[in-house]
Amino acid sequence: MADTWLPSLKTATPQEGFELAAKLARVGVKLTQPSADIRDKLRAAYEQDSTQLIASSQVIAIHFQTVAAANNYWRD
Amino acid sequence: MADTWLPSLKTATPQEGFELAAKLARVGVKLTQPSADIRDKLRAAYEQDSTQLIASSQVIAIHFQTVAAANNYWRD
Amino acid sequence: MADTWLPSLKTATPQEGFELAAKLARVGVKLTQPSADIRDKLRAAYEQDSTQLIASSQVIAIHFQTVAAANNYWRD
Amino acid sequence: MADTWLPSLKTATPQEGFELAAKLARVGVKLTQPSADIRDKLRAAYEQDSTQLIASSQVIAIHFQTVAAANNYWRD
Amino acid sequence: MADTWLPSLKTATPQEGFELAAKLARVGVKLTQPSADIRDKLRAAYEQDSTQLIASSQVIAIHFQTVAAANNYWRD
Amino acid sequence: MADTWLPSLKTATPQEGFELAAKLARVGVKLTQPSADIRDKLRAAYEQDSTQLIASSQVIAIHFQTVAAANNYWRD
Repeated sequence: MADTWLPSLKTATPQEGFELAAKLARVGVKLTQPSADIRDKLRAAYEQDSTQLIASSQVIAIHFQTVAAANNYWRD
Repeated sequence: MADTWLPSLKTATPQEGFELAAKLARVGVKLTQPSADIRDKLRAAYEQDSTQLIASSQVIAIHFQTVAAANNYWRD
Repeated sequence: MADTWLPSLKTATPQEGFELAAKLARVGVKLTQPSADIRDKLRAAYEQDSTQLIASSQVIAIHFQTVAAANNYWRD
Repeated sequence: MADTWLPSLKTATPQEGFELAAKLARVGVKLTQPSADIRDKLRAAYEQDSTQLIASSQVIAIHFQTVAAANNYWRD
Repeated sequence: MADTWLPSLKTATPQEGFELAAKLARVGVKLTQPSADIRDKLRAAYEQDSTQLIASSQVIAIHFQTVAAANNYWRD
Repeated sequence: MADTWLPSLKTATPQEGFELAAKLARVGVKLTQPSADIRDKLRAAYEQDSTQLIASSQVIAIHFQTVAAANNYWRD
């Protein structure tokens, strides 16, 4: 991952911030399992497993805290 | 999800903030499993599983931290 | 839940704040499983399961962070 | 629990703050399972289960964040 | 644990702060399971279990948030 | 680990901050399981286990909160 994939935590809207949080959650998985092939195989299984869907939603929630704080909660 | 579903983190009351937190938790699942059909099937199972209900409640709690901070804890 | 059940995050004491945190944890479950009958059945099981008791205690802990911050840690 | 068990989040030292955090974690369990008999039976099991010991340590960690913030990290 | 084991959250460097966070995670386990013998037996098992290693790493991460904040992120 | 591996939490960009968070998550595991041999064996298994990949991503998320705050969210 030599590319720039995270130039900034600023987003125009809370919704874009939420999408960024989801991206960060995915990149966190990618750093541990770099093979796209294996990730795709795993995805087929965990997309059908509500425990893992809730766990994924939790990782997004933690990142959304960070992104929201970085954007001063889009108050400005 | 091209629609605007999160225009702001501001809510009139803590209770509406809690409901927004629950919505964010659901959207976090939806981003990972976009099929409403599959989500409905999974819901039938996890609604009967206290471990998953507690896990869902935890994701709401994390989002409520964010929403509450965004609203300055409704102190104003 | 059309009633007002969360008018404010302010409590008179830390202890009342802790009780409010426990209430928020319960409401988080209720939003996902609205049937009181099913919740009662599940409760009978998870009250005997230490893993789930610890998980419940964790959700309370997360909400207590929010309630404590909202009350400026009852410093005033 | 009609008694006052949490009059304040202030402690004299970080160490006392850590002990308060451990107490809050225990009370969180107690609120969900009020029977001391059942809790004692469960304790015998989970004290031998490293997964649950780590989970307990995590709940303490979350409460310690709150207690530490309440005490301004004992910087004063 | 009558000794003073946590006189302060201040550390000279981020690295020492991380080591303090790891210590706090261990003490959290110790408060729940005071027997060193039992903890040693459990350690032999969970050191070979990646799920528990990740869970331990998570408890350290939570404590590191606290220690880092207490040290104003070693910015001064 | 006598070497200096964490001289600072400052990074030039959010992306480098994310990579530092991933490093902190790995070091957290290393502190509990110091043997590189055993960690390598475990990695072969958990890299194929989506539950553990999501859990790893969560630890990174928690550390990223710390690193992002330390860098004032790279706003300056």
